[in-house]
Amino acid sequence: MHVLRKPYLLYLGDAVLKTDCKTAFGLRDWCRGDVLGEWSHPQGRVTLGLPRMSPQEAAAGGAGSIVIGVAPTGGQLPEHWQDDLEAALEAGLDVVSGLHTRLAAFARLRAAAERRGVRLIDVRHPTREFPVASGRKRSGKRVLTVGTDCALGKKYTALALTRALETLGEAATFRATGQTGILIAGSGIAMDALVADFVAGAAEMLSPDNQPDHWDVIEGQGSLFHPAYAAVTLGLLHGSQPDAIVLCHDPTRRTIEEYPDYPIPALAVAIDAYLRAGRLTNKAIRCVGISINSSELAETEWQAYRIGLERELTLPVCDPLRGGVALLAGALRDL
Amino acid sequence: MHVLRKPYLLYLGDAVLKTDCKTAFGLRDWCRGDVLGEWSHPQGRVTLGLPRMSPQEAAAGGAGSIVIGVAPTGGQLPEHWQDDLEAALEAGLDVVSGLHTRLAAFARLRAAAERRGVRLIDVRHPTREFPVASGRKRSGKRVLTVGTDCALGKKYTALALTRALETLGEAATFRATGQTGILIAGSGIAMDALVADFVAGAAEMLSPDNQPDHWDVIEGQGSLFHPAYAAVTLGLLHGSQPDAIVLCHDPTRRTIEEYPDYPIPALAVAIDAYLRAGRLTNKAIRCVGISINSSELAETEWQAYRIGLERELTLPVCDPLRGGVALLAGALRDL
Repeated sequence: MHVLRKPYLLYLGDAVLKTDCKTAFGLRDWCRGDVLGEWSHPQGRVTLGLPRMSPQEAAAGGAGSIVIGVAPTGGQLPEHWQDDLEAALEAGLDVVSGLHTRLAAFARLRAAAERRGVRLIDVRHPTREFPVASGRKRSGKRVLTVGTDCALGKKYTALALTRALETLGEAATFRATGQTGILIAGSGIAMDALVADFVAGAAEMLSPDNQPDHWDVIEGQGSLFHPAYAAVTLGLLHGSQPDAIVLCHDPTRRTIEEYPDYPIPALAVAIDAYLRAGRLTNKAIRCVGISINSSELAETEWQAYRIGLERELTLPVCDPLRGGVALLAGALRDL
Repeated sequence: MHVLRKPYLLYLGDAVLKTDCKTAFGLRDWCRGDVLGEWSHPQGRVTLGLPRMSPQEAAAGGAGSIVIGVAPTGGQLPEHWQDDLEAALEAGLDVVSGLHTRLAAFARLRAAAERRGVRLIDVRHPTREFPVASGRKRSGKRVLTVGTDCALGKKYTALALTRALETLGEAATFRATGQTGILIAGSGIAMDALVADFVAGAAEMLSPDNQPDHWDVIEGQGSLFHPAYAAVTLGLLHGSQPDAIVLCHDPTRRTIEEYPDYPIPALAVAIDAYLRAGRLTNKAIRCVGISINSSELAETEWQAYRIGLERELTLPVCDPLRGGVALLAGALRDL
């Protein structure tokens, strides 16, 4: 399990395009209170609108880590980025990365981290071996976001649901299972990087025993309907032992992304498949509602779609970005 | 994918108990034609009843590899075993191991292998990165053995089925997914050692496009009903895209081994779950029969059980060790 030192300084390199800085914008939006400021190379053209501060200034202000919030081309770290990151290490900050390439592959960074006694943290790579799942029922309550496909709002829904539960006065913790989620939460386990035999065991460890009324809101991964990634999805489902699932869906998607021969299932079919699989480790599992990514729908389309779906499934239907997920949080509270 | 050099010399170390030499006995029984002989330390007390020959004699007789057929205590290789294995490397043999500990962790062996240009092969560990599954339908036919639990005959059934298909004149290849299977087949991929995102992709690679009438008989892993290992099972099922499954079962087992809170499902429930999951990548998947590990049943019990089950499921029911699997092979041929 990764545990990061907050607050963060966000690093933007010499990015010119905002789309290359998705991670940084996500952190600004989802954990603004944990971000002191931004830093970039003089040639950089992107800003998050946050206070600009050097690693030294950030460290003096209490920062624990500099987070690489920009995706470099080809996964390599340009020399001048390494200059900046080395300066951050020298200032006493951990360097945190969600890139494929491990930070320790860069000898300068490795040496500087050792010299200063600070850490190079690759949230995409597991830190340790995990135990085989025990299957033992844990105390506390759990909800897992699941999907008809990848990349349609499972992380976003889980984050929104955590906030909505807190707004209702419920105790809730977001549990991150992917790199961006880990950066936002400050801890978590990247499930897709684990050896298959240990995914369920890692999921058990990610959401340990808790107070009876506490909700772990677990970020889902992949989809049971994805021909490549369903294994991760199933291991996470079994290890999470969720009491509830929220199904995430994008109504404009007809087939699994990049798999045109694989149709997106009907929502009732998807709910049934997740509940059947989830019952192995939690007999009481139920679906409390649907989270829709409706960004492609006009307002009237969305309202018609939402009302039709609620009637069809007799479940609340929300878009976290369009009216929020209070209905889903209420359904969880009332469970 | 591991590809081993046959024939083998089987190494028994200084084993005193036959049960410590399960791997060697399995290889003797399942690929006798690929085994030249056995070798052990002078203190060893176990024999396979094969010609005893030194690594030098085996190499002169055409052997390609010495296979560690015995499990050492704690996974470490005693110094005197290393003496024997170093001699085998010097004689020009590859050393093949299914142990957790990597052979390359022993500096003497690493140095000897480099010096002689031969290989240290750990079949439990992946040799390479695998691609993400494509989901593309492949030519040729495939059958996968699946189970109500782990360790109840999936490998044995797949091996027996391969032979039975060949006896019927069908072209068939056993595809190994675990360490012992890989040693028997001389090639394969240890699925449980892979990063979860790549299990389905590795399974696709393991059984590539083939002649339309050719059967790949794929060794199953784990169980969809196992709270820790179902992820591997599902990835292997999706990537294998089997046209047929054979369900393996031990009627004396009431709960998942070592998981007393997890009941073994009814066979009809298990078949249904595997077919539902398998349809994602092969709409035509069907169950052709049941393979029973009936070793705990007396002959009359077995016959009564078999007849009752055939009537209940309207599927052929076999025990590979009690009458063979010709019925299952026939069902595959007639598919």
